[in-house]
Amino acid sequence: MHHVFDAAIALDPTSANTFTGATHPAYANMVGPFGGTTCAVLLNAALRHPQRQGDPVALTVNYAAALADGAFTIEAHPVRTNRSTQHWSVSLAQDGAVCATASAVFALRRPTWSTTELAPPQAMPAAASLARAPLHGRPPWVGCYDMRFDEGAMPERFDAQEQAHSRSRLWVRDEPPRPLDFASLAALCDVFFPRIFIRRRRFTPIGTVSLNAYFHADAALLAAQGDRHVLGCARGVAFRDGYFEQAAEVWSDRGALLASTQQLVYFKE
Amino acid sequence: MHHVFDAAIALDPTSANTFTGATHPAYANMVGPFGGTTCAVLLNAALRHPQRQGDPVALTVNYAAALADGAFTIEAHPVRTNRSTQHWSVSLAQDGAVCATASAVFALRRPTWSTTELAPPQAMPAAASLARAPLHGRPPWVGCYDMRFDEGAMPERFDAQEQAHSRSRLWVRDEPPRPLDFASLAALCDVFFPRIFIRRRRFTPIGTVSLNAYFHADAALLAAQGDRHVLGCARGVAFRDGYFEQAAEVWSDRGALLASTQQLVYFKE
Repeated sequence: MHHVFDAAIALDPTSANTFTGATHPAYANMVGPFGGTTCAVLLNAALRHPQRQGDPVALTVNYAAALADGAFTIEAHPVRTNRSTQHWSVSLAQDGAVCATASAVFALRRPTWSTTELAPPQAMPAAASLARAPLHGRPPWVGCYDMRFDEGAMPERFDAQEQAHSRSRLWVRDEPPRPLDFASLAALCDVFFPRIFIRRRRFTPIGTVSLNAYFHADAALLAAQGDRHVLGCARGVAFRDGYFEQAAEVWSDRGALLASTQQLVYFKE
Repeated sequence: MHHVFDAAIALDPTSANTFTGATHPAYANMVGPFGGTTCAVLLNAALRHPQRQGDPVALTVNYAAALADGAFTIEAHPVRTNRSTQHWSVSLAQDGAVCATASAVFALRRPTWSTTELAPPQAMPAAASLARAPLHGRPPWVGCYDMRFDEGAMPERFDAQEQAHSRSRLWVRDEPPRPLDFASLAALCDVFFPRIFIRRRRFTPIGTVSLNAYFHADAALLAAQGDRHVLGCARGVAFRDGYFEQAAEVWSDRGALLASTQQLVYFKE
C-alpha cells in the first residue's frame, strides 16, 4: 500500500460492518474530495469486508451532500447473498450525517458465450504520441492521473465558445502508474470532466448527484491491463433544467470493454 | 385508481416509512412479477411519502432475489433532504427477507440552458402504421402494453439464428391507455426484452440484477405526453461471462428524451 491512491481509499475496520477513513489532500477537488475516490472508498468497504463473495459487477453511488475534507465513517452491509450474487448497501457519514450512499452487486462469473455489441473506438492515436494534459489551474486530483486527450480536452480557458457536442476521448492511467483493480476502475469512472464545461466552455456550479457503473472486466482482465493507459470515451446525453446526464466507457488498450458508466449532474444555469 | 397499473403499484401505509403491497396477476412474468412493476412500486413508496420533495431524476433498483407472487412490505427513508435534492433509500421484503433495494434522487428543477446531445431516432414509422406485437406465448405482463416494433421484435420462435446486433425500436404505451407519470415511466424502463433473446434467438435463463434510470422529463412534459405511445430504443452493450448490459432510451412522440436507462442482467450460457 505505497501508492497514494491506496492511501486515499484506506479503511480501518471498527466493527464487523463499519470502517473509518479520511479524504486525502492529493485527491482534493475544487471543494472537498474528487468524487472518484468517494466511489472507490465506498466500493472498497465491500471489497475488504470479510463476508465478500465474488467481484463487483454493478455500482451506484449517490452523492447526498458535499463531503468535507477530513475523516468519515463507512457502514457496509451484505443485504443478501445468493449462490452467485451478493447485494451490498453502503453509506458514508461525516459527523453522523450521511453524505453518500452506494449499492453494489458482486458476482461469481462463469465462462459463457460473450461478445461486445458496442463498437470500440476507432483510430485512436497511441498514448505516447499525445501530450499529457496540463495541470495548471486544475484541482489537485487531476495530477493523480496521466490524461492524454485525442478529443474533447478540458478547455484551458472558459471562452464561452459553445461546442456542437461534448465528446471526449483520452488515454488515462493513475499517476504514478498503478496496476488496475476494481477500486481504481471505479475511480476512473468519475474521471471524465463535467460535460457542460466541454460543451459550453463557461463556468457554472455543478455537482454529481448519482453515478452508475457496470464492470465488464473480471479480475484476470484487470490484471492483464496492468498499469498501462486505458482508453476513456465520454459524451453528454441530455442537459435539462438543472440536471444533465453524461455517459462514458473505459476500454483496455487491447480493445476490451472494462466498464461503462453514467452519471446525473446538477448544474446551475 | 381504476387502471390495472395503479392497482399493481398500490401501497397501504403501515407507519411513517412503511407500506404493504402485493404483486398483481395482470403483471405476472414467467416467474414472479414483471420487473418494471417492481421498479414502479419501489419508486411509488417515495412518490407517496409525506416527506417527498420534488420529482424523481434518478432511480436504481437492485433485484436481490426472485419475488414470489403475493404480498410484500416496502420501507422508504428520505436519507437526506437538501434545498433542491432529496435522496431516498427504499427496500422491498417478503416474509422478512429483502428481495429488492432501490435508491432514488428527487429534485426541484429550475429552468436552465437545455439541450439534448443524444441524437433522436430518425425515420420511425407512425405507431398506427405498425401492427401490435402478438401476445401468444408471452407472459401476462406483455398484454399490459401495446408494443409496435419497427425493428428488433421478440422472436416468435427461438430458431437459434444469431443476429449481428440486438437493437430494437418500438412504440409502446400502457394497455389500456393511461396518462404517463413517473411510476409508469419507471416501469417502461424495464419493458425492453432481454437483449440476449433478440441477439441469439435461443432461450437461456436470465434475471436482471440491477437497473438504473435517469428521468429527463419533468411533470409538465409527462402531462403533455398523455396516454399516447412513447418511442423506445434499446440495444445490447456487452455480454460477458454470465452478465450482460443493455441500454435504452424512452422518447416522447414529439422527440423529447423522457428517460434513459441501463441494466445488468444475469444469463446462464
